[in-house]
Amino acid sequence: MKKILLLILLSSLVISCNTKPEKIESEGLSSEEKIDSTKIKTLFNSALIDGKSYEWLRDLTQNIGGRLSGSPEAAKAVLWGEKLMKEVGLDSVWLQHVMVPHWVRGEKEVATYATNSIQKKVPICALGFSVATPNSGILAEVLEVTSLAEAEALGEKMNGKIVFFNRPFDNTLINTFSAYGGCVDQRVQGAAVCGKFGAKGVIVRSMTNAVDDFPHTGTMSYGDLPQEQHIPTAAISSSAANILSEDLKENPNLKFYFKQSCETLPDAPSFNVVGEIRGTETPQNIFVVGGHLDSWDLGEGAHDDGAGVVQSLEVAYLFKKNNIKPKNTIRIVFFMNEENGTRGAKKYAELAKLNKENHIGGLESDAGGHTPRGFSIDANSVNTKLLQSWKTLLSPYGLHDLDKGGSGADISPLKEENVTLVGYRPDSQRYFDYHHTSRDTFDKVNKRELELGSASMASIVYLMDKYLYNNTLVKL
Amino acid sequence: MKKILLLILLSSLVISCNTKPEKIESEGLSSEEKIDSTKIKTLFNSALIDGKSYEWLRDLTQNIGGRLSGSPEAAKAVLWGEKLMKEVGLDSVWLQHVMVPHWVRGEKEVATYATNSIQKKVPICALGFSVATPNSGILAEVLEVTSLAEAEALGEKMNGKIVFFNRPFDNTLINTFSAYGGCVDQRVQGAAVCGKFGAKGVIVRSMTNAVDDFPHTGTMSYGDLPQEQHIPTAAISSSAANILSEDLKENPNLKFYFKQSCETLPDAPSFNVVGEIRGTETPQNIFVVGGHLDSWDLGEGAHDDGAGVVQSLEVAYLFKKNNIKPKNTIRIVFFMNEENGTRGAKKYAELAKLNKENHIGGLESDAGGHTPRGFSIDANSVNTKLLQSWKTLLSPYGLHDLDKGGSGADISPLKEENVTLVGYRPDSQRYFDYHHTSRDTFDKVNKRELELGSASMASIVYLMDKYLYNNTLVKL
Repeated sequence: MKKILLLILLSSLVISCNTKPEKIESEGLSSEEKIDSTKIKTLFNSALIDGKSYEWLRDLTQNIGGRLSGSPEAAKAVLWGEKLMKEVGLDSVWLQHVMVPHWVRGEKEVATYATNSIQKKVPICALGFSVATPNSGILAEVLEVTSLAEAEALGEKMNGKIVFFNRPFDNTLINTFSAYGGCVDQRVQGAAVCGKFGAKGVIVRSMTNAVDDFPHTGTMSYGDLPQEQHIPTAAISSSAANILSEDLKENPNLKFYFKQSCETLPDAPSFNVVGEIRGTETPQNIFVVGGHLDSWDLGEGAHDDGAGVVQSLEVAYLFKKNNIKPKNTIRIVFFMNEENGTRGAKKYAELAKLNKENHIGGLESDAGGHTPRGFSIDANSVNTKLLQSWKTLLSPYGLHDLDKGGSGADISPLKEENVTLVGYRPDSQRYFDYHHTSRDTFDKVNKRELELGSASMASIVYLMDKYLYNNTLVKL
Repeated sequence: MKKILLLILLSSLVISCNTKPEKIESEGLSSEEKIDSTKIKTLFNSALIDGKSYEWLRDLTQNIGGRLSGSPEAAKAVLWGEKLMKEVGLDSVWLQHVMVPHWVRGEKEVATYATNSIQKKVPICALGFSVATPNSGILAEVLEVTSLAEAEALGEKMNGKIVFFNRPFDNTLINTFSAYGGCVDQRVQGAAVCGKFGAKGVIVRSMTNAVDDFPHTGTMSYGDLPQEQHIPTAAISSSAANILSEDLKENPNLKFYFKQSCETLPDAPSFNVVGEIRGTETPQNIFVVGGHLDSWDLGEGAHDDGAGVVQSLEVAYLFKKNNIKPKNTIRIVFFMNEENGTRGAKKYAELAKLNKENHIGGLESDAGGHTPRGFSIDANSVNTKLLQSWKTLLSPYGLHDLDKGGSGADISPLKEENVTLVGYRPDSQRYFDYHHTSRDTFDKVNKRELELGSASMASIVYLMDKYLYNNTLVKL
């Protein structure tokens, strides 16, 4: 009787834990696809058992930390990357010199306002490239708008005011990057629009799906405004944005105060870190795999983009560990300055052209270290179609999304009609909880999710290397 | 020139943020599918804008907390659930009385051992239904095994010893529930196997993919062993298991000490919480949606299974909010005692039979609150095929996995040939970082991921209700 109870207990446990024998289906696969399927399984097993990316990321984020272009941390990260690439045993490793913008945040920013005799502190951070406020800060009335057009229409009315851009993310968009794309113009162009009408400053709602107390930094630009129209601009937390908006309804004349001491120093020397595994058949054909080494200064640059950096290197590590010798040259690049200038990407593309290198394709990881969802494809229609035919091989690993789309800011300067670029696309739901904030730290990255990403990337690089002949994907 | 630079900057940002206009493809859909596609989009929009599940979960986990069957917290959770169902405005709400096991942990457990004169503390927790150690604890040599068979083969050699089960998760399995299923026999049956040979106690490596310091509790059973052979059994953290294993190689005679004071009290009264929206056409046909209200005591029962509870109720909330009137009766059930006995599930099925209720289908959410991946289907082949044909409608929301598999421990007692059961399957990668530990807390649940789960569930319930006629899914 008790044995029966035990059996019932166990069977209900088995149901509850949804165990099913996990096997990768090989039915209906061609013999070539079976080989590929086995190789991909090997890459995943290897990443999940012997992966190094998580410990590399720990080292980068916890021992170096945030590494904004031009900072001492960014310089340390370059040496870190060079040393690590050598340790992994790439055939050659070198640095590409590049001058980068050097913006510094200065003292911690302060913002506050009073309403109904209550003084409220506002979580705030300067946006990258913003100028400082005067030493005494700025105090002014606030005009709230939800778009650049609305701001533009205010015209001279904003003279002497602080303009507050408060269009939130569209949370109904399933891909959170689409919501970001729908809001980020406020952050990038807000000050350029308002500076010319004599606004005193700009504050922008943080770029996030969440309502919380963390301000999100990010780059902005004054466009072609003359220096004297450059006004200080900062992000405030989404929660503070909601509260301020409510308070403005009740008290439209409240005065907002903020102070920041950031400045743009002269350009500083820095480097892309480059290493490669030379191709065995057509070494002159280069396939680039990369992420960006720089990060914003508020957090540790864990998801953005420490994850992409260590995953890119893990592609090479997994190839070597499993004795996969690529036909084409696989080049790993840790790009510098993606966050505020993409100077590293431009330099890389410029040198590629100058040296008449033949880039046949590339893969970028710069969308966080979360669980894999797929790749976005920027390629001609023939190559896109063949890439999409690999769905059968990739879907057992959760890689279902193989849609046309952008690849990434660092490899897209390599784009030409016959260059096949792909962007690694992990799940995006949590990404803007951390992006450009003090919360983008190592503890937010899950080891398995990171490793699954490395393996996903290694798998698509394996397939692309195997089937890319010069610039054409060929079905064997 | 600067305007050009700004344009370049913006275009590179746009590339980097991978924005693409998000639209749900309607091309190639039948007119009926277009209606469904629109309805599903409405449900997702509604969950992501007006969803209540996250605040409900905050309340359940932070104001009540862990709620093991028989505990005062479980009793509070029943009242909480009843009140909430009424607030949501279900047509009727009631409690189903059920007697549940009442096991209590007692004082915090202690474990330690010395090796090379170094005293090591071991993170440990008693397993559910385990007996206590003597007041003075247990001190004994340790035999390490990796399977029940290996333990069984030791036979009398384990007399007076502590048996240490140390088979780790197979981390190469992509679905972590498969890895769990491959290990959990050690936890459930370990003590039953070893008690009969006179072992003094059993310690089991925690059920997790991770190597960390958190012991994972969970249910165990002594099977048909006589009382005097019931030996204390506990889980130790995976990190401690690795270290102990190493230490045993060097010092096989080391003595392990542990002490726990748990006990099983007489069965206690408790309840399933049940509420329903009556069907407009065939109210006698019932479709169940549920999760379990009880949880382990160490954490807050956030992912396991507070998430499933609030998502189930949110299905009803979303139906009402969007004026969707189901044809069949949709019954929401907060099951009691899934964790150690599934008495609530059995009672529910027993009453359904007794009252000659006609259950046509069910949906369970008990795999955590992470980002949606799909559903597993436990149905006859005709219904399975039709369910799988909804992939086109569901995949825009990341719901790609529509494989045959178990539904869940709480609804599976309703299983008959013509009852269509599905289990909600979110991403599983992080789940066993938290499962049954002190880390299963509210802060580990992401608002959007939870809401996307509610909407996923509401969508499949909408489809199943629409196309289920009696027990058959009918393509219109």
